[in-house]
Amino acid sequence: MANETEYITLTLAEVHDLALQAFLRAGLSPEQARAMTDVIAKAEGDESRSHGLYRVMGCVNAVRSGKIDPKAVPTVVSENGAVIRVDAHLGFANHAVELGRERLIAKAKQCGVAVLAINHCYHFSALWGDIEPVAEQGLVAMSCTIGGHFVALAGGVKRAIGTNPFAFAFPRGPSRHPFVFDISSSIVARGEIELYRRAGKPLPEGWGIDKAGKPTRDAAAVLEGAILPFGGHKGAAIGLMVELLAGPLVGDMLGKDSFAADTGDGGPMRGGYIMIAIDPAFFGNGAENVAAGDRWLASLEDDHAPARLPSGRRYRSRKRSEQAGVRVDRSIYDEIKAI
Amino acid sequence: MANETEYITLTLAEVHDLALQAFLRAGLSPEQARAMTDVIAKAEGDESRSHGLYRVMGCVNAVRSGKIDPKAVPTVVSENGAVIRVDAHLGFANHAVELGRERLIAKAKQCGVAVLAINHCYHFSALWGDIEPVAEQGLVAMSCTIGGHFVALAGGVKRAIGTNPFAFAFPRGPSRHPFVFDISSSIVARGEIELYRRAGKPLPEGWGIDKAGKPTRDAAAVLEGAILPFGGHKGAAIGLMVELLAGPLVGDMLGKDSFAADTGDGGPMRGGYIMIAIDPAFFGNGAENVAAGDRWLASLEDDHAPARLPSGRRYRSRKRSEQAGVRVDRSIYDEIKAI
Repeated sequence: MANETEYITLTLAEVHDLALQAFLRAGLSPEQARAMTDVIAKAEGDESRSHGLYRVMGCVNAVRSGKIDPKAVPTVVSENGAVIRVDAHLGFANHAVELGRERLIAKAKQCGVAVLAINHCYHFSALWGDIEPVAEQGLVAMSCTIGGHFVALAGGVKRAIGTNPFAFAFPRGPSRHPFVFDISSSIVARGEIELYRRAGKPLPEGWGIDKAGKPTRDAAAVLEGAILPFGGHKGAAIGLMVELLAGPLVGDMLGKDSFAADTGDGGPMRGGYIMIAIDPAFFGNGAENVAAGDRWLASLEDDHAPARLPSGRRYRSRKRSEQAGVRVDRSIYDEIKAI
Repeated sequence: MANETEYITLTLAEVHDLALQAFLRAGLSPEQARAMTDVIAKAEGDESRSHGLYRVMGCVNAVRSGKIDPKAVPTVVSENGAVIRVDAHLGFANHAVELGRERLIAKAKQCGVAVLAINHCYHFSALWGDIEPVAEQGLVAMSCTIGGHFVALAGGVKRAIGTNPFAFAFPRGPSRHPFVFDISSSIVARGEIELYRRAGKPLPEGWGIDKAGKPTRDAAAVLEGAILPFGGHKGAAIGLMVELLAGPLVGDMLGKDSFAADTGDGGPMRGGYIMIAIDPAFFGNGAENVAAGDRWLASLEDDHAPARLPSGRRYRSRKRSEQAGVRVDRSIYDEIKAI
């Protein structure tokens, strides 16, 4: 909103290489670096920029501050019934997600449903990137993790839950991208409020409260106070569910404790993670069940304009990026290059 | 909002007997009648009146119209891996839920996670009543079914999804009631819009659109058009998830098809149903995981007033109703007595 931004155009291979080299120079193990680079390049390609190269510096700073182990090797703690537990050993979540996801998919195809829990991880990436591969294998998936502890309950006077993203994916058969959504529990991203603060603009009504618990349109006051949940008490309920699933259920930290223990380096905060996968083949004619969902979603895309389905815009961006590359903020590029 | 309503006070045993005798006189099998009466008496006790005795006439009319089989005996279709499928054979859902839930709980305790799907059922009751017993057994539970096809997508111009309720329960240990929420995907209940219409009052902004897809505050126009989802595109995403899970995934009808096929008798519409249960014992120290969730929820209850947690008010009503009985609308009482 201040000076004009300068951009450069990179191919997705160049984005990948840029992030990979930066992570390797920052001391990450090749496996950690590759897993993180994959999700960052995917986010850039989908023009989900808030989870793309923009995140690299925060991750590097989180390694430099000493809170994240750049060489951590995730391990499978147990595979009991249809539940898989993975310990990330205080590394980034991505490599642990890859390790657990492969087993989750196999287990769901064997049992009809399976759960993956990851403990002691630092999750910075978009959840849609975690579950899209599960739906590409023909399974329904959902996942959640605890976000920054910035959100009040509806009618509340202070922070109660994290921004708590929740994602869901439904397969659409071999020839179509899955239906995927990924929503946070806050009415708006904290970064958006930061933009209002920098621009000196008042917030829309109903976005946040100040430290005293009073509604305010002052962005700086909301950053010190709390953001409100989306959709009033219903969105708050979803946020509470996410916190219970990714925290207490899997035996990991609450957002408030993770926030209090954080070094404030701008990188991700420590926490737990959960993913559930369900195989449509266990509910009669699985292929027909998936096809029925696909036909319905296609009818919504066709007949309900101007409403748009989640993920449609990302897939259009992906196609464009694969052909024409992506536009990257020059200052972010330079900063990563200088690592 | 019109004339003053006359009330009578009944004990919960009297509520139970009133509903049971009505259902038996309407031709329901003793098992169907008892299962339905249990959830109706529970809803009255919790002062969740929109799912209490108020529903009896609609259910009886749905039997009289011929669409629901009052003698249907639900059967277990398959138990494969951690997935249980139950066919309600076009009866009410409640007896099928009881049958499947017992197996779901056993299966989740064996595998860590399990799914129950019910097909060909008519679900009229509140979802919290379905999952609270699962959480009372120490398990995390979620469930959903497709509601009346009245809701547009955010930014949409016509009906796309049902009111699509989604419920979640988390156990709080042996001495406390579980945390349970049960939210519909619409910004407001259709019944609420009906009350505005009767009172001739304009709706608040943002509740609905007319048949042409235009935003309107005219209640009658919204009843002919569509209600908007809660929380914009995020609530719409939850509503889409519910429809995909309880419809295509389990091989059952979409809300629009069920709505089109309905006889319009005011009773529930045909559809599918899904419930998922997860056992905290599979994630390390299960009792401590549950206790950590309970401590956190208790701290939210204590420190975050005036925000209230879901289900707190219902449990207070339950305690009161067990001691002092419930207040029942005289006209509803007379109508049920006359069946």
